[in-house]
Amino acid sequence: MAELLKGKEVVDALNERLKVEVELLKEKGISPTLGIIRVGKKSEDMSYEKGAIKRAETIGIDVKSFVLEENTSQEQLIQLIEDVNQEESIHGVLLFRPLPKQFDDNAVRKALLASKDIDGITDQSMAGVFSGTELGYPPCTPQACMEILDHYNIDAAGKKVVIIGRSLVVGKPAAMMILQKNGTPTICHTKTKDMPAICQDAEILIVAAGKAKAIGTEYLNKKQIVIDVGINMSEDGKLCGDVDFEEAEKIVKAITPVPGGVGTVTTSMLMKHVVEAAKKRVR
Amino acid sequence: MAELLKGKEVVDALNERLKVEVELLKEKGISPTLGIIRVGKKSEDMSYEKGAIKRAETIGIDVKSFVLEENTSQEQLIQLIEDVNQEESIHGVLLFRPLPKQFDDNAVRKALLASKDIDGITDQSMAGVFSGTELGYPPCTPQACMEILDHYNIDAAGKKVVIIGRSLVVGKPAAMMILQKNGTPTICHTKTKDMPAICQDAEILIVAAGKAKAIGTEYLNKKQIVIDVGINMSEDGKLCGDVDFEEAEKIVKAITPVPGGVGTVTTSMLMKHVVEAAKKRVR
Repeated sequence: MAELLKGKEVVDALNERLKVEVELLKEKGISPTLGIIRVGKKSEDMSYEKGAIKRAETIGIDVKSFVLEENTSQEQLIQLIEDVNQEESIHGVLLFRPLPKQFDDNAVRKALLASKDIDGITDQSMAGVFSGTELGYPPCTPQACMEILDHYNIDAAGKKVVIIGRSLVVGKPAAMMILQKNGTPTICHTKTKDMPAICQDAEILIVAAGKAKAIGTEYLNKKQIVIDVGINMSEDGKLCGDVDFEEAEKIVKAITPVPGGVGTVTTSMLMKHVVEAAKKRVR
Repeated sequence: MAELLKGKEVVDALNERLKVEVELLKEKGISPTLGIIRVGKKSEDMSYEKGAIKRAETIGIDVKSFVLEENTSQEQLIQLIEDVNQEESIHGVLLFRPLPKQFDDNAVRKALLASKDIDGITDQSMAGVFSGTELGYPPCTPQACMEILDHYNIDAAGKKVVIIGRSLVVGKPAAMMILQKNGTPTICHTKTKDMPAICQDAEILIVAAGKAKAIGTEYLNKKQIVIDVGINMSEDGKLCGDVDFEEAEKIVKAITPVPGGVGTVTTSMLMKHVVEAAKKRVR
Protein backbone atom coordinates (compact mmCIF):
# COMPACT_ATOMS: atom_id res chain seq x y z
CA MET A 1 0.00 0.00 0.00
CA ALA A 2 1.12 3.51 -0.83
CA GLU A 3 2.46 5.83 1.84
CA LEU A 4 -0.13 8.54 2.55
CA LEU A 5 1.23 12.06 2.15
CA LYS A 6 -1.18 13.70 4.56
CA GLY A 7 -1.67 17.43 4.43
CA LYS A 8 -2.24 17.73 8.17
CA GLU A 9 1.33 16.78 9.01
CA VAL A 10 2.59 19.44 6.66
CA VAL A 11 0.22 22.04 8.08
CA ASP A 12 1.08 21.19 11.69
CA ALA A 13 4.81 21.52 11.04
CA LEU A 14 4.30 24.76 9.15
CA ASN A 15 1.98 26.20 11.81
CA GLU A 16 4.64 25.63 14.45
CA ARG A 17 7.24 27.48 12.40
CA LEU A 18 4.85 30.31 11.54
CA LYS A 19 3.73 30.74 15.17
CA VAL A 20 7.34 31.36 16.17
CA GLU A 21 7.83 33.84 13.34
CA VAL A 22 4.62 35.68 14.23
CA GLU A 23 5.77 35.93 17.86
CA LEU A 24 9.11 37.40 16.79
CA LEU A 25 7.35 39.89 14.52
CA LYS A 26 4.98 40.95 17.29
CA GLU A 27 7.96 41.54 19.58
CA LYS A 28 9.17 43.96 16.93
CA GLY A 29 5.81 45.70 16.90
CA ILE A 30 4.54 44.13 13.67
CA SER A 31 1.29 42.19 13.84
CA PRO A 32 1.01 40.15 10.64
CA THR A 33 -2.38 40.86 9.12
CA LEU A 34 -4.31 39.29 6.26
CA GLY A 35 -6.79 41.44 4.38
CA ILE A 36 -9.68 39.58 2.77
CA ILE A 37 -11.73 41.23 0.04
CA ARG A 38 -14.93 39.49 -0.92
CA VAL A 39 -17.63 40.69 -3.30
CA GLY A 40 -20.98 39.03 -2.71
CA LYS A 41 -21.77 35.90 -0.73
CA LYS A 42 -20.74 32.92 -2.84
CA SER A 43 -20.82 29.88 -0.56
CA GLU A 44 -17.44 28.52 -1.68
CA ASP A 45 -15.81 31.91 -1.03
CA MET A 46 -17.38 32.10 2.41
CA SER A 47 -16.33 28.59 3.29
CA TYR A 48 -12.73 29.26 2.18
CA GLU A 49 -12.80 32.54 4.10
CA LYS A 50 -13.99 30.78 7.24
CA GLY A 51 -11.16 28.25 6.94
CA ALA A 52 -8.62 31.01 6.36
CA ILE A 53 -9.79 32.99 9.39
CA LYS A 54 -9.57 29.89 11.58
CA ARG A 55 -6.09 29.02 10.27
CA ALA A 56 -4.96 32.63 10.80
CA GLU A 57 -6.22 32.58 14.40
CA THR A 58 -4.29 29.39 15.15
CA ILE A 59 -1.08 31.03 14.01
CA GLY A 60 -1.71 34.45 15.54
CA ILE A 61 -2.30 36.29 12.27
CA ASP A 62 -4.91 39.05 12.35
CA VAL A 63 -7.59 39.20 9.68
CA LYS A 64 -9.43 42.24 8.35
CA SER A 65 -12.36 41.32 6.13
CA PHE A 66 -13.87 43.71 3.62
CA VAL A 67 -17.15 42.55 2.17
CA LEU A 68 -18.77 44.38 -0.72
CA GLU A 69 -22.27 43.95 -2.08
CA GLU A 70 -22.71 41.76 -5.15
CA ASN A 71 -23.70 44.86 -7.17
CA THR A 72 -20.63 46.93 -6.20
CA SER A 73 -19.15 48.99 -9.04
CA GLN A 74 -15.69 48.47 -10.45
CA GLU A 75 -14.69 51.92 -9.18
CA GLN A 76 -15.73 51.06 -5.63
CA LEU A 77 -13.79 47.80 -5.64
CA ILE A 78 -10.67 49.43 -7.09
CA GLN A 79 -10.93 52.23 -4.53
CA LEU A 80 -11.06 49.64 -1.76
CA ILE A 81 -8.03 47.83 -3.17
CA GLU A 82 -6.13 51.11 -3.33
CA ASP A 83 -7.06 51.89 0.26
CA VAL A 84 -5.86 48.46 1.35
CA ASN A 85 -2.64 48.96 -0.66
CA GLN A 86 -2.04 52.14 1.37
CA GLU A 87 -2.98 50.59 4.70
CA GLU A 88 0.33 49.76 6.36
CA SER A 89 -1.23 47.46 8.94
CA ILE A 90 -2.38 45.00 6.23
CA HIS A 91 0.47 42.88 4.88
CA GLY A 92 -1.20 40.63 2.36
CA VAL A 93 -4.49 40.54 0.49
CA LEU A 94 -6.73 37.67 -0.54
CA LEU A 95 -9.20 38.79 -3.21
CA PHE A 96 -11.87 36.26 -4.10
CA ARG A 97 -12.20 35.57 -7.82
CA PRO A 98 -13.85 35.00 -10.21
CA LEU A 99 -15.58 38.33 -9.56
CA PRO A 100 -19.18 39.01 -10.59
CA LYS A 101 -19.69 39.77 -14.28
CA GLN A 102 -19.64 43.57 -14.11
CA PHE A 103 -15.92 43.57 -13.24
CA ASP A 104 -12.96 43.79 -15.58
CA ASP A 105 -10.72 41.16 -14.01
CA ASN A 106 -7.53 42.59 -15.57
CA ALA A 107 -8.16 46.09 -14.28
CA VAL A 108 -8.93 44.78 -10.80
CA ARG A 109 -5.83 42.56 -10.65
CA LYS A 110 -3.72 45.47 -11.83
CA ALA A 111 -4.92 47.63 -8.92
CA LEU A 112 -3.37 45.35 -6.31
CA LEU A 113 0.21 45.99 -5.19
CA ALA A 114 2.43 43.02 -6.00
CA SER A 115 4.01 43.33 -2.56
CA LYS A 116 0.60 42.48 -1.03
CA ASP A 117 -0.40 39.91 -3.66
CA ILE A 118 -0.09 36.83 -1.45
CA ASP A 119 -2.35 34.78 -3.72
CA GLY A 120 -0.28 35.30 -6.88
CA ILE A 121 -2.89 37.02 -9.06
CA THR A 122 -0.94 40.03 -10.39
CA ASP A 123 1.20 40.14 -13.53
CA GLN A 124 4.27 40.75 -11.38
CA SER A 125 3.58 37.63 -9.34
CA MET A 126 3.22 35.66 -12.56
CA ALA A 127 6.45 37.12 -13.92
CA GLY A 128 8.06 36.18 -10.60
CA VAL A 129 6.94 32.55 -10.87
CA PHE A 130 7.97 32.41 -14.51
CA SER A 131 11.39 33.94 -13.97
CA GLY A 132 12.05 32.28 -10.62
CA THR A 133 12.61 35.61 -8.90
CA GLU A 134 10.96 37.14 -5.85
CA LEU A 135 8.42 39.35 -7.52
CA GLY A 136 5.09 39.18 -5.73
CA TYR A 137 4.02 35.71 -4.53
CA PRO A 138 3.31 32.38 -6.26
CA PRO A 139 -0.22 30.99 -6.37
CA CYS A 140 -0.96 28.92 -3.27
CA THR A 141 -2.08 25.61 -4.81
CA PRO A 142 1.09 24.67 -6.74
CA GLN A 143 3.15 25.96 -3.83
CA ALA A 144 1.23 23.61 -1.55
CA CYS A 145 2.33 20.75 -3.83
CA MET A 146 5.96 21.82 -3.42
CA GLU A 147 5.53 22.20 0.36
CA ILE A 148 4.27 18.61 0.54
CA LEU A 149 7.27 17.35 -1.45
CA ASP A 150 9.59 19.31 0.85
CA HIS A 151 7.95 18.13 4.04
CA TYR A 152 8.18 14.47 3.06
CA ASN A 153 11.78 14.93 1.84
CA ILE A 154 10.94 14.07 -1.73
CA ASP A 155 13.65 15.62 -3.86
CA ALA A 156 12.51 16.53 -7.37
CA ALA A 157 16.05 17.27 -8.58
CA GLY A 158 16.89 15.32 -11.71
CA LYS A 159 13.51 13.56 -11.64
CA LYS A 160 10.92 13.24 -14.37
CA VAL A 161 7.94 15.20 -13.14
CA VAL A 162 4.76 15.02 -15.18
CA ILE A 163 2.10 17.63 -14.55
CA ILE A 164 -1.43 17.06 -15.84
CA GLY A 165 -3.12 20.40 -16.47
CA ARG A 166 -1.84 23.63 -17.96
CA SER A 167 -3.80 26.25 -16.03
CA LEU A 168 -2.30 29.49 -14.88
CA VAL A 169 -3.14 28.73 -11.25
CA VAL A 170 -1.76 25.18 -11.08
CA GLY A 171 -0.13 23.47 -14.06
CA LYS A 172 2.09 26.20 -15.47
CA PRO A 173 3.35 27.55 -12.14
CA ALA A 174 3.88 23.99 -10.85
CA ALA A 175 6.15 23.34 -13.86
CA MET A 176 8.15 26.48 -13.13
CA MET A 177 8.49 25.53 -9.46
CA ILE A 178 9.66 22.04 -10.42
CA LEU A 179 12.31 23.67 -12.63
CA GLN A 180 13.42 25.71 -9.61
CA LYS A 181 13.88 22.40 -7.81
CA ASN A 182 15.98 21.11 -10.72
CA GLY A 183 13.32 18.62 -11.77
CA THR A 184 12.47 17.92 -15.41
CA PRO A 185 8.84 18.91 -15.96
CA THR A 186 6.49 17.74 -18.71
CA ILE A 187 3.15 19.51 -19.00
CA CYS A 188 0.27 17.34 -20.25
CA HIS A 189 -3.23 18.51 -21.13
CA THR A 190 -6.37 17.52 -22.98
CA LYS A 191 -4.59 17.66 -26.37
CA THR A 192 -1.68 15.45 -25.27
CA LYS A 193 -1.35 12.14 -27.09
CA ASP A 194 -0.34 8.96 -25.24
CA MET A 195 -0.94 10.62 -21.91
CA PRO A 196 -1.07 7.36 -19.92
CA ALA A 197 2.35 6.30 -21.26
CA ILE A 198 3.88 9.72 -20.56
CA CYS A 199 2.49 9.69 -17.01
CA GLN A 200 3.49 6.11 -16.35
CA ASP A 201 7.07 7.14 -17.07
CA ALA A 202 6.94 9.90 -14.40
CA GLU A 203 8.71 9.64 -11.07
CA ILE A 204 6.52 12.38 -9.64
CA LEU A 205 3.01 12.92 -11.00
CA ILE A 206 1.15 16.13 -10.19
CA VAL A 207 -2.49 15.86 -11.20
CA ALA A 208 -4.71 18.86 -11.85
CA ALA A 209 -6.94 17.33 -14.50
CA GLY A 210 -10.17 18.72 -13.09
CA LYS A 211 -12.05 15.46 -13.53
CA ALA A 212 -13.08 13.04 -10.79
CA LYS A 213 -11.05 9.81 -10.65
CA ALA A 214 -9.81 10.35 -14.23
CA ILE A 215 -6.32 9.01 -13.51
CA GLY A 216 -6.27 5.23 -13.09
CA THR A 217 -3.94 2.25 -13.27
CA GLU A 218 -2.62 2.88 -16.79
CA TYR A 219 -1.10 6.21 -15.67
CA LEU A 220 0.68 4.84 -12.64
CA ASN A 221 3.82 2.96 -11.63
CA LYS A 222 5.01 1.50 -8.38
CA LYS A 223 7.88 3.93 -7.80
CA GLN A 224 5.67 6.96 -8.27
CA ILE A 225 4.90 9.88 -5.97
CA VAL A 226 1.41 11.18 -6.80
CA ILE A 227 0.22 14.64 -5.80
CA ASP A 228 -3.52 14.97 -6.44
CA VAL A 229 -4.68 18.57 -6.74
CA GLY A 230 -8.25 17.71 -7.73
CA ILE A 231 -11.26 18.28 -5.52
CA ASN A 232 -14.45 16.83 -6.96
CA MET A 233 -17.73 15.44 -5.81
CA SER A 234 -17.99 11.77 -6.80
CA GLU A 235 -21.20 10.08 -7.91
CA ASP A 236 -21.84 8.83 -4.39
CA GLY A 237 -21.67 12.39 -3.05
CA LYS A 238 -18.24 12.11 -1.45
CA LEU A 239 -15.23 14.38 -2.03
CA CYS A 240 -12.64 12.80 -4.29
CA GLY A 241 -9.56 13.74 -6.26
CA ASP A 242 -8.65 13.51 -9.94
CA VAL A 243 -6.86 10.23 -9.22
CA ASP A 244 -8.72 6.98 -8.70
CA PHE A 245 -7.46 6.69 -5.16
CA GLU A 246 -8.58 3.10 -4.48
CA GLU A 247 -6.62 1.88 -7.51
CA ALA A 248 -3.65 4.19 -7.04
CA GLU A 249 -3.19 3.32 -3.38
CA LYS A 250 -2.50 -0.30 -4.41
CA ILE A 251 0.09 0.68 -7.01
CA VAL A 252 2.11 3.80 -6.28
CA LYS A 253 4.81 4.48 -3.70
CA ALA A 254 3.12 7.51 -2.13
CA ILE A 255 0.01 9.61 -2.70
CA THR A 256 -1.81 12.60 -1.23
CA PRO A 257 -5.36 11.79 -0.09
CA VAL A 258 -8.43 13.86 -1.07
CA PRO A 259 -9.71 15.34 1.17
CA GLY A 260 -6.78 15.90 3.53
CA GLY A 261 -4.01 16.44 1.00
CA VAL A 262 -3.10 19.43 -1.16
CA GLY A 263 -6.24 21.42 -0.30
CA THR A 264 -5.42 21.32 3.39
CA VAL A 265 -2.00 22.80 2.77
CA THR A 266 -3.16 25.54 0.38
CA THR A 267 -4.59 27.82 3.08
CA SER A 268 -1.33 27.53 4.99
CA MET A 269 0.54 28.90 1.97
CA LEU A 270 -1.59 32.03 2.23
CA MET A 271 -0.52 32.36 5.88
CA LYS A 272 3.11 31.74 5.01
CA HIS A 273 2.93 34.57 2.47
CA VAL A 274 1.35 36.96 4.98
CA VAL A 275 4.20 36.26 7.38
CA GLU A 276 6.77 36.72 4.60
CA ALA A 277 5.15 40.01 3.60
CA ALA A 278 5.15 41.17 7.23
CA LYS A 279 8.83 40.20 7.61
CA LYS A 280 9.68 42.56 4.74
CA ARG A 281 8.42 45.39 6.95
CA VAL A 282 11.13 44.80 9.55
CA ARG A 283 13.75 47.51 9.20
CA MET B 1 19.33 13.35 -45.55
CA ALA B 2 17.30 15.70 -43.36
CA GLU B 3 15.20 18.43 -44.87
CA LEU B 4 16.84 21.80 -44.19
CA LEU B 5 14.56 24.27 -42.45
CA LYS B 6 16.23 27.39 -43.77
CA GLY B 7 15.63 30.69 -42.04
CA LYS B 8 15.87 32.68 -45.25
CA GLU B 9 12.66 31.18 -46.65
CA VAL B 10 10.82 32.10 -43.46
CA VAL B 11 12.25 35.63 -43.50
CA ASP B 12 11.43 36.17 -47.19
CA ALA B 13 7.83 35.11 -46.71
CA LEU B 14 7.50 37.25 -43.60
CA ASN B 15 9.14 40.27 -45.24
CA GLU B 16 6.59 40.14 -48.04
CA ARG B 17 3.71 40.11 -45.56
CA LEU B 18 5.23 42.86 -43.44
CA LYS B 19 5.94 45.09 -46.44
CA VAL B 20 2.25 45.01 -47.35
CA GLU B 21 1.24 45.81 -43.77
CA VAL B 22 3.73 48.67 -43.58
CA GLU B 23 2.34 50.11 -46.81
CA LEU B 24 -1.20 49.96 -45.46
CA LEU B 25 -0.09 51.65 -42.24
CA LYS B 26 1.70 54.40 -44.12
CA GLU B 27 -1.47 55.03 -46.13
CA LYS B 28 -3.16 55.63 -42.78
CA GLY B 29 -0.42 58.09 -41.81
CA ILE B 30 1.44 55.75 -39.47
CA SER B 31 5.08 55.08 -40.25
CA PRO B 32 6.15 52.04 -38.20
CA THR B 33 9.28 52.98 -36.32
CA LEU B 34 11.76 50.98 -34.28
CA GLY B 35 13.66 52.75 -31.52
CA ILE B 36 17.04 51.28 -30.66
CA ILE B 37 18.73 52.14 -27.37
CA ARG B 38 22.35 51.13 -27.04
CA VAL B 39 24.74 51.94 -24.21
CA GLY B 40 28.39 51.72 -25.23
CA LYS B 41 29.91 50.09 -28.28
CA LYS B 42 29.90 46.35 -27.71
CA SER B 43 30.72 44.70 -31.05
CA GLU B 44 27.93 42.10 -30.85
CA ASP B 45 25.34 44.82 -30.08
CA MET B 46 26.58 46.89 -33.00
CA SER B 47 26.51 43.94 -35.34
CA TYR B 48 22.93 43.02 -34.30
CA GLU B 49 21.95 46.68 -34.63
CA LYS B 50 23.39 46.84 -38.13
CA GLY B 51 21.42 43.74 -39.13
CA ALA B 52 18.24 45.14 -37.59
CA ILE B 53 18.59 48.46 -39.42
CA LYS B 54 19.13 46.65 -42.72
CA ARG B 55 16.14 44.36 -42.13
CA ALA B 56 13.99 47.35 -41.16
CA GLU B 57 14.97 49.19 -44.35
CA THR B 58 13.99 46.21 -46.49
CA ILE B 59 10.52 46.23 -44.97
CA GLY B 60 10.05 49.99 -44.88
CA ILE B 61 10.30 50.36 -41.10
CA ASP B 62 12.03 53.52 -39.84
CA VAL B 63 14.72 53.28 -37.19
CA LYS B 64 15.70 55.86 -34.60
CA SER B 65 18.90 54.96 -32.78
CA PHE B 66 19.83 56.39 -29.42
CA VAL B 67 23.41 55.73 -28.39
CA LEU B 68 24.61 56.53 -24.89
CA GLU B 69 28.18 56.58 -23.62
CA GLU B 70 29.43 53.53 -21.75
CA ASN B 71 29.62 55.62 -18.54
CA THR B 72 26.03 56.94 -18.75
CA SER B 73 24.21 57.08 -15.41
CA GLN B 74 21.14 55.04 -14.56
CA GLU B 75 19.12 58.28 -14.32
CA GLN B 76 20.12 59.31 -17.82
CA LEU B 77 19.20 55.96 -19.31
CA ILE B 78 15.84 55.85 -17.51
CA GLN B 79 15.13 59.43 -18.62
CA LEU B 80 15.81 58.39 -22.22
CA ILE B 81 13.51 55.38 -21.90
CA GLU B 82 10.78 57.60 -20.49
CA ASP B 83 11.21 60.05 -23.35
CA VAL B 84 10.95 57.21 -25.86
CA ASN B 85 7.86 55.90 -24.03
CA GLN B 86 6.26 59.32 -24.56
CA GLU B 87 7.38 59.66 -28.17
CA GLU B 88 4.35 58.69 -30.22
CA SER B 89 6.33 58.26 -33.43
CA ILE B 90 8.28 55.32 -31.96
CA HIS B 91 6.26 52.11 -31.82
CA GLY B 92 8.67 49.60 -30.40
CA VAL B 93 11.96 49.66 -28.52
CA LEU B 94 14.99 47.40 -28.67
CA LEU B 95 17.21 47.95 -25.63
CA PHE B 96 20.53 46.14 -25.71
CA ARG B 97 21.30 44.08 -22.63
CA PRO B 98 23.20 43.05 -20.63
CA LEU B 99 23.86 46.65 -19.68
CA PRO B 100 27.19 47.84 -18.24
CA LYS B 101 27.70 47.07 -14.56
CA GLN B 102 26.55 50.40 -13.08
CA PHE B 103 22.95 49.71 -14.11
CA ASP B 104 20.20 48.06 -12.09
CA ASP B 105 18.70 45.83 -14.77
CA ASN B 106 15.34 45.50 -12.95
CA ALA B 107 14.86 49.24 -12.59
CA VAL B 108 15.76 49.79 -16.24
CA ARG B 109 13.41 47.08 -17.52
CA LYS B 110 10.64 48.47 -15.35
CA ALA B 111 10.97 51.89 -16.98
CA LEU B 112 9.96 50.61 -20.42
CA LEU B 113 6.29 50.60 -21.37
CA ALA B 114 5.05 47.05 -22.04
CA SER B 115 3.24 48.34 -25.13
CA LYS B 116 6.64 49.24 -26.65
CA ASP B 117 8.50 46.20 -25.29
CA ILE B 118 8.93 44.41 -28.62
CA ASP B 119 11.83 42.32 -27.30
CA GLY B 120 9.91 40.86 -24.36
CA ILE B 121 12.06 42.14 -21.50
CA THR B 122 9.44 43.60 -19.13
CA ASP B 123 7.56 41.77 -16.39
CA GLN B 124 4.31 42.33 -18.26
CA SER B 125 5.73 40.70 -21.39
CA MET B 126 6.83 37.74 -19.29
CA ALA B 127 3.42 37.50 -17.66
CA GLY B 128 1.93 37.63 -21.16
CA VAL B 129 4.05 34.72 -22.38
CA PHE B 130 3.34 32.77 -19.21
CA SER B 131 -0.40 33.33 -19.30
CA GLY B 132 -0.76 33.13 -23.08
CA THR B 133 -2.36 36.58 -23.24
CA GLU B 134 -1.41 39.65 -25.24
CA LEU B 135 0.49 41.58 -22.61
CA GLY B 136 3.60 43.14 -24.11
CA TYR B 137 5.54 40.95 -26.59
CA PRO B 138 7.26 37.57 -26.37
CA PRO B 139 11.05 37.34 -26.63
CA CYS B 140 12.15 37.07 -30.26
CA THR B 141 14.27 33.91 -30.20
CA PRO B 142 11.63 31.38 -29.07
CA GLN B 143 9.11 33.12 -31.27
CA ALA B 144 11.47 32.64 -34.21
CA CYS B 145 11.39 28.89 -33.43
CA MET B 146 7.59 28.94 -33.59
CA GLU B 147 7.64 30.97 -36.81
CA ILE B 148 9.86 28.33 -38.41
CA LEU B 149 7.49 25.55 -37.34
CA ASP B 150 4.55 27.54 -38.74
CA HIS B 151 6.26 28.35 -42.02
CA TYR B 152 7.14 24.72 -42.69
CA ASN B 153 3.65 23.57 -41.63
CA ILE B 154 4.95 21.56 -38.71
CA ASP B 155 2.05 21.21 -36.32
CA ALA B 156 3.11 20.84 -32.68
CA ALA B 157 -0.40 19.94 -31.51
CA GLY B 158 -0.45 16.68 -29.57
CA LYS B 159 3.28 16.20 -30.15
CA LYS B 160 6.02 15.51 -27.65
CA VAL B 161 8.24 18.57 -27.74
CA VAL B 162 11.46 18.47 -25.77
CA ILE B 163 13.22 21.74 -25.05
CA ILE B 164 16.83 21.72 -23.90
CA GLY B 165 17.53 24.79 -21.81
CA ARG B 166 15.48 26.59 -19.16
CA SER B 167 16.49 30.21 -19.68
CA LEU B 168 14.04 33.06 -19.46
CA VAL B 169 14.83 34.17 -23.00
CA VAL B 170 14.51 30.80 -24.75
CA GLY B 171 13.65 27.61 -22.88
CA LYS B 172 10.83 28.71 -20.59
CA PRO B 173 9.01 30.92 -23.13
CA ALA B 174 9.45 28.25 -25.82
CA ALA B 175 7.67 25.77 -23.53
CA MET B 176 4.79 28.21 -22.98
CA MET B 177 4.51 28.84 -26.72
CA ILE B 178 4.44 25.10 -27.41
CA LEU B 179 1.59 24.80 -24.89
CA GLN B 180 -0.25 27.53 -26.82
CA LYS B 181 0.15 25.31 -29.89
CA ASN B 182 -1.29 22.37 -27.94
CA GLY B 183 2.03 20.54 -27.88
CA THR B 184 3.27 18.64 -24.83
CA PRO B 185 6.50 20.30 -23.66
CA THR B 186 9.26 18.81 -21.53
CA ILE B 187 11.97 21.17 -20.31
CA CYS B 188 15.42 19.61 -19.91
CA HIS B 189 18.48 21.25 -18.40
CA THR B 190 21.89 20.52 -16.92
CA LYS B 191 20.38 18.68 -13.92
CA THR B 192 18.15 16.42 -16.03
CA LYS B 193 18.91 12.70 -15.80
CA ASP B 194 18.74 10.46 -18.89
CA MET B 195 18.61 13.49 -21.16
CA PRO B 196 19.54 11.55 -24.32
CA ALA B 197 16.67 9.10 -23.80
CA ILE B 198 14.18 11.89 -23.08
CA CYS B 199 15.28 13.76 -26.20
CA GLN B 200 15.29 10.68 -28.38
CA ASP B 201 11.63 10.24 -27.53
CA ALA B 202 10.80 13.77 -28.77
CA GLU B 203 8.97 14.45 -32.02
CA ILE B 204 10.18 18.04 -32.00
CA LEU B 205 13.47 18.94 -30.31
CA ILE B 206 14.27 22.58 -29.55
CA VAL B 207 17.89 22.95 -28.51
CA ALA B 208 19.20 25.89 -26.52
CA ALA B 209 21.94 24.10 -24.62
CA GLY B 210 24.52 26.82 -25.12
CA LYS B 211 27.29 24.37 -25.96
CA ALA B 212 28.78 23.75 -29.40
CA LYS B 213 27.77 20.43 -31.01
CA ALA B 214 26.66 19.03 -27.62
CA ILE B 215 23.67 17.19 -29.06
CA GLY B 216 24.68 14.11 -31.06
CA THR B 217 23.33 10.78 -32.31
CA GLU B 218 22.11 9.48 -28.94
CA TYR B 219 19.62 12.36 -28.64
CA LEU B 220 18.11 11.96 -32.10
CA ASN B 221 15.59 9.87 -34.00
CA LYS B 222 14.67 9.66 -37.64
CA LYS B 223 11.19 11.17 -37.33
CA GLN B 224 12.45 14.21 -35.48
CA ILE B 225 12.21 17.91 -36.26
CA VAL B 226 15.22 19.68 -34.74
CA ILE B 227 15.29 23.42 -34.09
CA ASP B 228 18.82 24.49 -33.13
CA VAL B 229 18.91 27.81 -31.26
CA GLY B 230 22.63 27.66 -30.51
CA ILE B 231 25.20 29.96 -32.07
CA ASN B 232 28.76 29.02 -31.18
CA MET B 233 32.23 29.27 -32.59
CA SER B 234 33.58 25.77 -33.22
CA GLU B 235 37.21 24.79 -32.70
CA ASP B 236 37.97 25.37 -36.37
CA GLY B 237 36.70 28.95 -36.10
CA LYS B 238 33.38 28.39 -37.88
CA LEU B 239 29.89 29.22 -36.61
CA CYS B 240 28.01 26.16 -35.41
CA GLY B 241 24.91 25.24 -33.44
CA ASP B 242 24.37 23.23 -30.25
CA VAL B 243 23.55 20.21 -32.39
CA ASP B 244 26.23 18.15 -34.13
CA PHE B 245 24.88 19.06 -37.55
CA GLU B 246 26.94 16.57 -39.60
CA GLU B 247 25.61 13.68 -37.49
CA ALA B 248 22.07 15.02 -37.15
CA GLU B 249 21.65 15.67 -40.85
CA LYS B 250 22.10 11.94 -41.50
CA ILE B 251 19.53 10.94 -38.91
CA VAL B 252 16.64 13.35 -38.38
CA LYS B 253 13.70 14.27 -40.59
CA ALA B 254 14.33 18.01 -40.64
CA ILE B 255 16.74 20.46 -39.00
CA THR B 256 17.51 24.18 -38.94
CA PRO B 257 21.07 24.97 -40.09
CA VAL B 258 23.48 27.23 -38.14
CA PRO B 259 24.11 29.81 -39.45
CA GLY B 260 21.02 30.44 -41.55
CA GLY B 261 18.39 29.05 -39.21
CA VAL B 262 16.79 30.45 -36.05
CA GLY B 263 19.16 33.41 -35.77
CA THR B 264 18.17 34.67 -39.21
CA VAL B 265 14.50 34.67 -38.25
CA THR B 266 14.99 36.35 -34.85
CA THR B 267 15.54 39.86 -36.23
CA SER B 268 12.36 39.49 -38.28
CA MET B 269 10.38 38.84 -35.10
CA LEU B 270 11.50 42.26 -33.89
CA MET B 271 10.14 43.77 -37.11
CA LYS B 272 6.90 41.84 -36.81
CA HIS B 273 6.42 43.24 -33.32
CA VAL B 274 7.10 46.82 -34.47
CA VAL B 275 4.41 46.41 -37.12
CA GLU B 276 2.01 44.89 -34.57
CA ALA B 277 2.68 47.77 -32.17
CA ALA B 278 2.11 50.30 -34.96
CA LYS B 279 -1.15 48.57 -35.94
CA LYS B 280 -2.45 49.15 -32.42
CA ARG B 281 -2.19 52.88 -33.11
CA VAL B 282 -4.79 52.69 -35.88
CA ARG B 283 -8.02 54.14 -34.58
